[in-house]
Amino acid sequence: MEDVASHATKEDCWVILHDRIYDLTHFLSRHPGGAAVILKVAGRDGTAAFAAIHPPDMVDILPESACVGQLDPEAAAARKASAEVDPEEKERRLRIAKCPPLEACFNLMDFESAAQTALSPEAWAYYSSGSDDEISLRDNRAAFQRIWLRPRVMVNVLNVDISTHILGHPASLPLYISATALGRLGHPDGEIALTRGAATTAIPQMLPTLASCSLKEMTDARADGQVQFYQLYVAQDRDHTARLIRAAEDRGCKGLFITVDAPQLGRREKDMRMKFIEEAPKEQDDSTAGRNEGAARAISSFIHPGLAWEDIPWFRSITRMPIILKGIQCGEDAVKAAHAGVDGIVLSNHGGRQMDTAPSGIEALAESVAALSAAGVPPGQMELYMDGGVRRGSDIFKALALGATAVGIGRPLLYAMSAYGSDGVVRAIRILQDELIMTMRLMGTPTVQDIQPGHVNARMVSVHSSSVPEDSLSRALYKPLVAPKSKL
Amino acid sequence: MEDVASHATKEDCWVILHDRIYDLTHFLSRHPGGAAVILKVAGRDGTAAFAAIHPPDMVDILPESACVGQLDPEAAAARKASAEVDPEEKERRLRIAKCPPLEACFNLMDFESAAQTALSPEAWAYYSSGSDDEISLRDNRAAFQRIWLRPRVMVNVLNVDISTHILGHPASLPLYISATALGRLGHPDGEIALTRGAATTAIPQMLPTLASCSLKEMTDARADGQVQFYQLYVAQDRDHTARLIRAAEDRGCKGLFITVDAPQLGRREKDMRMKFIEEAPKEQDDSTAGRNEGAARAISSFIHPGLAWEDIPWFRSITRMPIILKGIQCGEDAVKAAHAGVDGIVLSNHGGRQMDTAPSGIEALAESVAALSAAGVPPGQMELYMDGGVRRGSDIFKALALGATAVGIGRPLLYAMSAYGSDGVVRAIRILQDELIMTMRLMGTPTVQDIQPGHVNARMVSVHSSSVPEDSLSRALYKPLVAPKSKL
Amino acid sequence: MEDVASHATKEDCWVILHDRIYDLTHFLSRHPGGAAVILKVAGRDGTAAFAAIHPPDMVDILPESACVGQLDPEAAAARKASAEVDPEEKERRLRIAKCPPLEACFNLMDFESAAQTALSPEAWAYYSSGSDDEISLRDNRAAFQRIWLRPRVMVNVLNVDISTHILGHPASLPLYISATALGRLGHPDGEIALTRGAATTAIPQMLPTLASCSLKEMTDARADGQVQFYQLYVAQDRDHTARLIRAAEDRGCKGLFITVDAPQLGRREKDMRMKFIEEAPKEQDDSTAGRNEGAARAISSFIHPGLAWEDIPWFRSITRMPIILKGIQCGEDAVKAAHAGVDGIVLSNHGGRQMDTAPSGIEALAESVAALSAAGVPPGQMELYMDGGVRRGSDIFKALALGATAVGIGRPLLYAMSAYGSDGVVRAIRILQDELIMTMRLMGTPTVQDIQPGHVNARMVSVHSSSVPEDSLSRALYKPLVAPKSKL
Amino acid sequence: MEDVASHATKEDCWVILHDRIYDLTHFLSRHPGGAAVILKVAGRDGTAAFAAIHPPDMVDILPESACVGQLDPEAAAARKASAEVDPEEKERRLRIAKCPPLEACFNLMDFESAAQTALSPEAWAYYSSGSDDEISLRDNRAAFQRIWLRPRVMVNVLNVDISTHILGHPASLPLYISATALGRLGHPDGEIALTRGAATTAIPQMLPTLASCSLKEMTDARADGQVQFYQLYVAQDRDHTARLIRAAEDRGCKGLFITVDAPQLGRREKDMRMKFIEEAPKEQDDSTAGRNEGAARAISSFIHPGLAWEDIPWFRSITRMPIILKGIQCGEDAVKAAHAGVDGIVLSNHGGRQMDTAPSGIEALAESVAALSAAGVPPGQMELYMDGGVRRGSDIFKALALGATAVGIGRPLLYAMSAYGSDGVVRAIRILQDELIMTMRLMGTPTVQDIQPGHVNARMVSVHSSSVPEDSLSRALYKPLVAPKSKL
Repeated sequence: MEDVASHATKEDCWVILHDRIYDLTHFLSRHPGGAAVILKVAGRDGTAAFAAIHPPDMVDILPESACVGQLDPEAAAARKASAEVDPEEKERRLRIAKCPPLEACFNLMDFESAAQTALSPEAWAYYSSGSDDEISLRDNRAAFQRIWLRPRVMVNVLNVDISTHILGHPASLPLYISATALGRLGHPDGEIALTRGAATTAIPQMLPTLASCSLKEMTDARADGQVQFYQLYVAQDRDHTARLIRAAEDRGCKGLFITVDAPQLGRREKDMRMKFIEEAPKEQDDSTAGRNEGAARAISSFIHPGLAWEDIPWFRSITRMPIILKGIQCGEDAVKAAHAGVDGIVLSNHGGRQMDTAPSGIEALAESVAALSAAGVPPGQMELYMDGGVRRGSDIFKALALGATAVGIGRPLLYAMSAYGSDGVVRAIRILQDELIMTMRLMGTPTVQDIQPGHVNARMVSVHSSSVPEDSLSRALYKPLVAPKSKL
Repeated sequence: MEDVASHATKEDCWVILHDRIYDLTHFLSRHPGGAAVILKVAGRDGTAAFAAIHPPDMVDILPESACVGQLDPEAAAARKASAEVDPEEKERRLRIAKCPPLEACFNLMDFESAAQTALSPEAWAYYSSGSDDEISLRDNRAAFQRIWLRPRVMVNVLNVDISTHILGHPASLPLYISATALGRLGHPDGEIALTRGAATTAIPQMLPTLASCSLKEMTDARADGQVQFYQLYVAQDRDHTARLIRAAEDRGCKGLFITVDAPQLGRREKDMRMKFIEEAPKEQDDSTAGRNEGAARAISSFIHPGLAWEDIPWFRSITRMPIILKGIQCGEDAVKAAHAGVDGIVLSNHGGRQMDTAPSGIEALAESVAALSAAGVPPGQMELYMDGGVRRGSDIFKALALGATAVGIGRPLLYAMSAYGSDGVVRAIRILQDELIMTMRLMGTPTVQDIQPGHVNARMVSVHSSSVPEDSLSRALYKPLVAPKSKL
Repeated sequence: MEDVASHATKEDCWVILHDRIYDLTHFLSRHPGGAAVILKVAGRDGTAAFAAIHPPDMVDILPESACVGQLDPEAAAARKASAEVDPEEKERRLRIAKCPPLEACFNLMDFESAAQTALSPEAWAYYSSGSDDEISLRDNRAAFQRIWLRPRVMVNVLNVDISTHILGHPASLPLYISATALGRLGHPDGEIALTRGAATTAIPQMLPTLASCSLKEMTDARADGQVQFYQLYVAQDRDHTARLIRAAEDRGCKGLFITVDAPQLGRREKDMRMKFIEEAPKEQDDSTAGRNEGAARAISSFIHPGLAWEDIPWFRSITRMPIILKGIQCGEDAVKAAHAGVDGIVLSNHGGRQMDTAPSGIEALAESVAALSAAGVPPGQMELYMDGGVRRGSDIFKALALGATAVGIGRPLLYAMSAYGSDGVVRAIRILQDELIMTMRLMGTPTVQDIQPGHVNARMVSVHSSSVPEDSLSRALYKPLVAPKSKL
Repeated sequence: MEDVASHATKEDCWVILHDRIYDLTHFLSRHPGGAAVILKVAGRDGTAAFAAIHPPDMVDILPESACVGQLDPEAAAARKASAEVDPEEKERRLRIAKCPPLEACFNLMDFESAAQTALSPEAWAYYSSGSDDEISLRDNRAAFQRIWLRPRVMVNVLNVDISTHILGHPASLPLYISATALGRLGHPDGEIALTRGAATTAIPQMLPTLASCSLKEMTDARADGQVQFYQLYVAQDRDHTARLIRAAEDRGCKGLFITVDAPQLGRREKDMRMKFIEEAPKEQDDSTAGRNEGAARAISSFIHPGLAWEDIPWFRSITRMPIILKGIQCGEDAVKAAHAGVDGIVLSNHGGRQMDTAPSGIEALAESVAALSAAGVPPGQMELYMDGGVRRGSDIFKALALGATAVGIGRPLLYAMSAYGSDGVVRAIRILQDELIMTMRLMGTPTVQDIQPGHVNARMVSVHSSSVPEDSLSRALYKPLVAPKSKL
């Protein structure tokens, strides 16, 4: 260890990762996340910081020669025994101890609130940020509130059945866990915690390309009969992409969700600001100028911006999994997808993280259903999903009324996991189940099939108005009416 | 008393209720409101806590054997003499003493403000809460403000007559007291205070199934010529329901308002949160996990979710009271109700306590009148009522202009009662009378019959828009104009 | 004086008014403003308090016998010499001294801000209050901001002429001073200050029935060639009304503006609250219970609610002044007025002081022009005016574009007068002149005749929307983006 | 210097400007900016204050006789050596030192935030102010947020080309620097800093008539191949105007942008308020009464309000530069411009500094494209530009989708320049480039030509709604839902 500690400069930089010692001196300038984060752990064990972002097999991209040695097993074991003293983990546990009891979380927003306590500022910035002015990020939520319900009464709702099928697989409710990157930023178990939660609640999980856990870890964690899909970022290297798809299929994934809304990752300035604040005082090195682009861009530099409609037959040629395009945002593209013969589409603006002022998934869903109908595409030829802004059982109901087969959620479960591990994931999904049962009962729709467009008033969903900027002089002059004062 | 005090554990739990001693040990786990609230008074007199929630005859659901004794009458009298020292009642009186003078209440909101002083946090949470995000709760008020008036001038309004008939019975104005549960949470007189207020002001009162007072108490309190209706929650046990209806008719109720919007009670998280905070520190018992559902659900577990249109003939067969369906929320159901031959409907979203983002009563009224007309239902075949959000005389006017016969109010009178007893109820109704007289004078409509659709502009009532989420960076940069500064 | 001071109780109440001594004991219970305000000055000189509300000749309504004596002229002179020590006037001067310099007022809102410093809380409450929730009060301003301008460029606007004619009389701009009550509440000169300001700026003044100054005082103050109109509240006593009209005509008024929107005065709760606070601690007397209705209702109890369209010929029969109806609020009534043959109408909701959620004058104007056209009334048969919410030269422009001949303003000039006397009135009007010149230059309309409907986009004027109530949980969780921090 | 110092009164006022001594006694009363600002530097060197507002050659308007001497060259050199002690410059540098590092600016708003630190309050007031209530100023930003994007996916966007042509000249992106006055208020380099920034980033610069730098300075600073246009305020003196145009053409300007929206400058009250505060305590002189009109009006008194459509042939007759009208605000005028045969128009409301509640440039663009099409004007006959509110690359995209060839920005670059000089200008433009590349990639439009109307949803752009004024009593009573509390 002392030996390693002597290689702690920019010119000579060794780091321990999973008990092996790497010389990263030459890799510093090529690290997509910038040199600074590596230099922080130079001469030390960087496993914790590394694992929060990368799956274990990511070290394989380093040349074999970079590995300059291995920790003596005894030392490694000793270090692990004392692993709890890792200061970041210590801090995390202190934060977790401050979270409200799990039973105090009554809805999905409560988990987000708990996660604001549980997460490090960096992780919070990465998870919560949206692109540009975060207008789409917030409209994803607001759009649901522009859709109002039209309840029917005097329907026998003694028995309510919220179960459904997603791509032919049973799901306990019309919900799946959508893919999100970097699960270990939030919790040491990473995506595995989500896998466990999905198993317990019997809903499908979509596995992310940019997971902190490896595909093997995530599929090994799968329970009997549990359904997993695979989310794909198409890489510049087509062979690499083909290997990813085949690995997913081989490991039992039941659907291929190709992300189509991210030929380039969006500017997430909250994340950038956090990273900038972090590094600015520690690093004067010019080589990192212009690198303050946050975790998002750092991990995504390999994504291919050349993906096009013409590529769909190639995907068909290398997999038997059903193909779903994730990130359709307008009616014209929904029709194109139908003509291209894919099995489904996800209407989504990527959680408000890509193009700001792009419509929310629920708005794009309403538009797409109309466009598909106008284009003569038979209902049911292609399954429709949406994600973005789903927080209540009534949101799921609204999506179904507008034509969705199911909805995906991402961040809320990351938040639940970050504060409470897989127990949190389970409770969050159970709450949605309870809320959906209540909604279907109060709406007079005992089964998923009973839910129809006439159950919602969605006329305002695509209306993006704003108030005339306030007249500040008059506004300041107005003294509001007040209630009579209490005595004493 | 000492004897009772020795039975104060979960394993051996005695409680005094109305001078009788009950062994509730076996009932603990079956109490819809959870064991914790009973254990709080274990070994003591629980009458005050019991009476705030339950009518006196509710003890009859306990098996006869549960009653293990009776207080010695002398001891009972002694205790009653010192009843004022009941600490909760003491606190209530201290709060009441802080309320503004009754004469300082100029409008119905002022009573709500006073009630925030007068009520315990638990009672406030129960009365004021709505479901989920409380959006419908608040839209009930906002919807009236999207309807604008179109006053006519130069009409002789020397004499304004605001009286009308409700189900054929005279009312001093187009207003009735709607049923609300648990009146004694707010005031020791409970629903009786409302009965007295309604008598003084000559408006009908609708008696709730979930009253704190017994039906006998409420009907005995009726003044000569006073009109009472009966609100019904249909129970799973049909015989029980039939008994309730017959009792109401026998005791002189003049109309049966069947609640149709509550096959399950909504999630009222403010109420749940309050209950959670209360119990969490006191109770580690697993048996109450998942029971933190607030007063609302606790009292309603017997409601039947199987009620359907087919049941209406059965109701007809057992009562001669006119039948009104309370809780219709869309035009289609209004037409179904007309075809089912009921005598009236109440357009209502249950005070925003059931399905969040369901339309307000006033919005559903506007939609229903149009739907009934489109379906060819003759005007007047069925009386139309609405409730939810009525706070001003002009709100009553707007409802009448849109086609209502009368409107119901619930919470505002609970608030008035909680702070000022029946005097408060009377003043609140008098204010509405004054406001309605003023409104009808300023609108140029000397009688209720003169009020027509052309007196309102209701084009926006069903428009649920939201502003584009604000661009926080720009917004923070803008420095508003300011007025010139005063000297010194 | 000592003698007077000994009559200072409810049972024996003398008051000095304008140097005469009155026994008001029997009048106490009949005083429309309540006994309390009289008892405050019992046994003392009440002239200051009296003059702030009533014209000097108001004492004539007392029976001759009420005057029990006259101050000895020497004593009266002595008192007047020391009049400055009147404590209320002293306080007023202290407040005035704190007002910003007149030159610091750049727009009409700035005068309102100064008036918040200059006025007593009671006067502020009376002047600024609106009815009920003050929604129309504020919408009067907001409505102008829903109307947007459509400027034309490349028009020769070297010479801009903003002058016009109002009822055939020249006005330096399309503006008149509208009638407002109780001018001396704001400034000792009362309505005379407005007369002087109107003279200097060459615009017509409308004299109020409920002035603090007498009609004689106001018409005597008229400058050569100055135009005055008369605003009429029609009293229950028709002869009294006839006398008022003839007096106005005899004293040279050039138009009769009959207020038609006030068969009863609106509830102005800010004013009521102020009065309540004032009296509550001082007065336990039951006789004033229910009297806390603010200055507004106190002064208006004589208004006749029976005024009707049928009465117009009677008005014609007793005056040659042109007749204008003030307070028309919808298109139907505008058409009725045209058919009744009046010379003009004022679209107005009485400054938001009568029917809350009634449309603003500018909205009613747009509706009325359309209705008159649809009814085939020839343009120009009847002059159209509006008031309510006018604060900028561009507001005047918008009203003219929509069809008004001129606009009235009330409160802004009361505010200017209260803080700065007639100098303030002049500056306020000059600012409007400057703003209107600028507006007409920038709009490409060198004369009033050039202003056309195509110069505005008024599509939204009658749209009364509201945002969906905010989802407070989500909103609280969102952390806005922030700008980079300054150093140190 | 001592000699000069003895001439420091209103009656005898010498000032040093650029090393020459001027007797300004007679000029005091004719100075458009008022006497006060001159008297502040009487008997001293006024070069710094002078240069912040005027180009060096502005002294030429003084009669030759006004120059009463020249500083002895040695003294001049000595003074320059110690120029850094100029107290205003000293303060400026202190403010600049507090600005965040340039790299911390991630978007154009961040530069505005930095400029709030960097600028003097006076300069901030002049740059940031808008007219009247600053409603158009802010709506310029909000209007973009009422336009939503409709992204297309699965388009090969490997190579994105954001370059275009403006009036036939290449530009690295569809952006030019719009003319803004008084650059030296913000930075000693003034407009030259903008010239340098434009050169580095290869976009055209529009040179202002009211520059702080002389035309010669600005054109001399031009880099090889750099494109400059000339913005013209048409003066009352036509010969003077002709000289300005010829000078611009002679010095290589490639287009003449005639400002048509400023026959009179708007009321910018923030600027007026700042000036008033400044001078009020220092100056009792009546001659400046009414002069508190801010920097804006002071510098613009020579603008000619008689400019009309008939003048266009005259401009054609004296220049070969293409002619563009800057400040068109409605469709009718766009059509007139096309018929007048100009080469382009700029849809603009002058940064919200002229007619308040005039539509934003982006709104006027949408309206104009429709009007031109309806009038049969062939697409492309006339180039369309817009300015106002552009802050994001996506805003440029939206303007292009609606039919613009390019957009102008003004204030954001002034802010960037004020805080960081030309480095700031370069970074600001680079950010827009980055953002536009990202937007075009995410929108599926690899070249500027691919951008079509179907890429935006602009239905709401001209909707100017406002919410019903809030019901303050109800609002205050509502207690929002809260998240569960963290422990400790």
